[in-house]
Amino acid sequence: MKAEIITVGTELVTGQVLDTHSSYLSKQCRQLNIPVMYHTTVGDQREEMLSTFRLAASRSDLVIICGGLGPTWDDMSKEVLAESLGYTLVQDSGLVVLLERRFAARQIELTENNYRQTYVFPNGTIFPNPNGTAPGHLVEQDGTTYILLPGPPRELLPMFEDAVFPYLKQRFVPNEVIESQDLCFFGIGESKLEAEVQRLINQNEKLVAATYVSDAEVTLRLISHAKEKEQAQSQLEQTKLTILSHLGEYCFSEGKNRLEEVVVNALKMNGKTVAFAESCTGGLLAHLISSVPGSSAVLQGGFVLYTYQAKEAFLHVTPDWLAKEGAVSYSTAKRLAEEARDQFHSDYALSVTGVAGPEKSEDKPVGLVYVGLASQDDHTQVYQLKLQGMRQHIQLMAAKHALFNLQQRMKER
Amino acid sequence: MKAEIITVGTELVTGQVLDTHSSYLSKQCRQLNIPVMYHTTVGDQREEMLSTFRLAASRSDLVIICGGLGPTWDDMSKEVLAESLGYTLVQDSGLVVLLERRFAARQIELTENNYRQTYVFPNGTIFPNPNGTAPGHLVEQDGTTYILLPGPPRELLPMFEDAVFPYLKQRFVPNEVIESQDLCFFGIGESKLEAEVQRLINQNEKLVAATYVSDAEVTLRLISHAKEKEQAQSQLEQTKLTILSHLGEYCFSEGKNRLEEVVVNALKMNGKTVAFAESCTGGLLAHLISSVPGSSAVLQGGFVLYTYQAKEAFLHVTPDWLAKEGAVSYSTAKRLAEEARDQFHSDYALSVTGVAGPEKSEDKPVGLVYVGLASQDDHTQVYQLKLQGMRQHIQLMAAKHALFNLQQRMKER
Repeated sequence: MKAEIITVGTELVTGQVLDTHSSYLSKQCRQLNIPVMYHTTVGDQREEMLSTFRLAASRSDLVIICGGLGPTWDDMSKEVLAESLGYTLVQDSGLVVLLERRFAARQIELTENNYRQTYVFPNGTIFPNPNGTAPGHLVEQDGTTYILLPGPPRELLPMFEDAVFPYLKQRFVPNEVIESQDLCFFGIGESKLEAEVQRLINQNEKLVAATYVSDAEVTLRLISHAKEKEQAQSQLEQTKLTILSHLGEYCFSEGKNRLEEVVVNALKMNGKTVAFAESCTGGLLAHLISSVPGSSAVLQGGFVLYTYQAKEAFLHVTPDWLAKEGAVSYSTAKRLAEEARDQFHSDYALSVTGVAGPEKSEDKPVGLVYVGLASQDDHTQVYQLKLQGMRQHIQLMAAKHALFNLQQRMKER
Repeated sequence: MKAEIITVGTELVTGQVLDTHSSYLSKQCRQLNIPVMYHTTVGDQREEMLSTFRLAASRSDLVIICGGLGPTWDDMSKEVLAESLGYTLVQDSGLVVLLERRFAARQIELTENNYRQTYVFPNGTIFPNPNGTAPGHLVEQDGTTYILLPGPPRELLPMFEDAVFPYLKQRFVPNEVIESQDLCFFGIGESKLEAEVQRLINQNEKLVAATYVSDAEVTLRLISHAKEKEQAQSQLEQTKLTILSHLGEYCFSEGKNRLEEVVVNALKMNGKTVAFAESCTGGLLAHLISSVPGSSAVLQGGFVLYTYQAKEAFLHVTPDWLAKEGAVSYSTAKRLAEEARDQFHSDYALSVTGVAGPEKSEDKPVGLVYVGLASQDDHTQVYQLKLQGMRQHIQLMAAKHALFNLQQRMKER
């Protein structure tokens, strides 16, 4: 069993648009134990497409082709694949009805071009596209399966997850149950996590672990293959427990969530609210929380206090106090958190003050950050961080550390 | 002239790491009018690499291969290319000295594996690697030029820019001067901009325009080829003026800058400061400014006022006033901006209040946003926006609109 992925588009091969589909589809195939041997990107040019498709036919059992299904004349993946396989496309009356209805509903004029999308492979199968006019296609010849998918991510991704993945599972691993479990970590690097997981669990065909990193958070996806659902689940559960018993302190979610989502959900569940007082993160912390749908139930508000004057005014401290303690200090972090809690009347308040760089400040090194956590029912905690990297990375890490601290605090309750 | 790019690495073909080199190198080739016809990604597997290299030899004049130059045994791009071309690699004594010095300086033990990186192609050329131990290689055969580059971005990017790009320019466009000019736009979509530029200027071999989109900003890069520097520059200047005479209202920079950088620089140049009062953007606006190095000279601070209570308290308005006017309204945006200006003692203040979704608020539709701009020396302006998309996109667009308004205001002065 060998698979390959072909992405079609002049905007890809010229570098104007970054191809993320190949990586995504490879990860999905990995979950099904389907090995992907090649990614190829080719422009909207008949000759190059033809030779790419023919080469794929000669070496792969599964060929996934993305893009080139649009209505314009430079979209020709389907036509060129039909040519290379020696098929003549036929019009599908069901698709014609759908297309005409769709355009009528939107009161847009249908052009001759649009009807190209109603042609299908004889003996092929189509995957419906709820988010666009181009359906996906499946066709087989000489033992090779070809799948054509529309290029726009908001069409490809749901189509793959809802229809193509289940098809591939049924087709290539029909007698296996596949279960997966995500674990989200903060405070441990991707390579460290990968090495630890390698050490802790025995990976094989039946159990695959893959890491994905995004915004300083690392997601570990465990994939379990078995004959029975129960067996797949129990293998997953045991593996999860082994990992958590060693790395649990870094884990903030047993689902696929961003840290700020977990914090918003935990606050909601506990009926608590939060406020922020930020210096070096400049509003990032509040913004991360506000980016979560439904955060208005828990977010009271926040200060961005960037200058000495702003800190003096809103923290009710004297210039002398601030000069003595320093803006980047334990006491200022404490004061920031407590004033945010009191002035916004929130249950919790987080503060961040530090040196994001590129220049030192108060003779303190770049990366030195204090995070404060005040609450209604406990004394205020202040943590010192020593972060590395560029300004924006330090800001992001400081904000995520603050959120992680709050999440851990709520977990303890 | 046809080029292709091959990236090598099992981590790429399994989707664990996203390939960004192919896109980057295609863009660079485009600046040199070298057409890239294919991107191929292949794992660290001898058979697949061999067939990929042989195919490239049969169809391309320039083949750029990235990755697989490391010291471990699964790094074998150089060896497999040598095999496919029928060459025997030879040890380079200069590289041996460099390698031993490097390891001695770092007090790391040299293993046998490391010496693999001192072997080169007979009659080949090497590109030095100041950021790692693997040099780049260039070798030619039967009219095809092969360039091998190390995979890590912090090694590949400087090597390409410092050594490979100049080589390619000298080799493939020796008698041409290439000049480029970036223009940054906001408030016009990428496809609209591209279509307008298409209409306005005559693109040909001598003048190429490429658009890049990032965070709602569109950069237009104009690349001019000519025999003389002066001619290249004047062609660029004329083209720029043509574009700006039609689309100047959307242009915020004639260099490669983010909008927030342009705003920070303009504030600095004018000796002005800014503060923020944010509702639906939740701190994003302040954070964007704070993400710019040196922003502490201009950023006074900001409020995030998410709830009615927070707005009442910090805006000094009564619950009745707020209920009557609405939190998402012209008057609240005005009040937010003016209070931020007054309480933070800044020259300018920006406010944002709106419905970021996914739910309606105050019976107002998702995407309705008011942006306020207060200043010390003029009356407060309030703009209404009707934005579309998901919550995070609406927040980003609202923040960028606010920054763009401030930038335009300062430009008028």
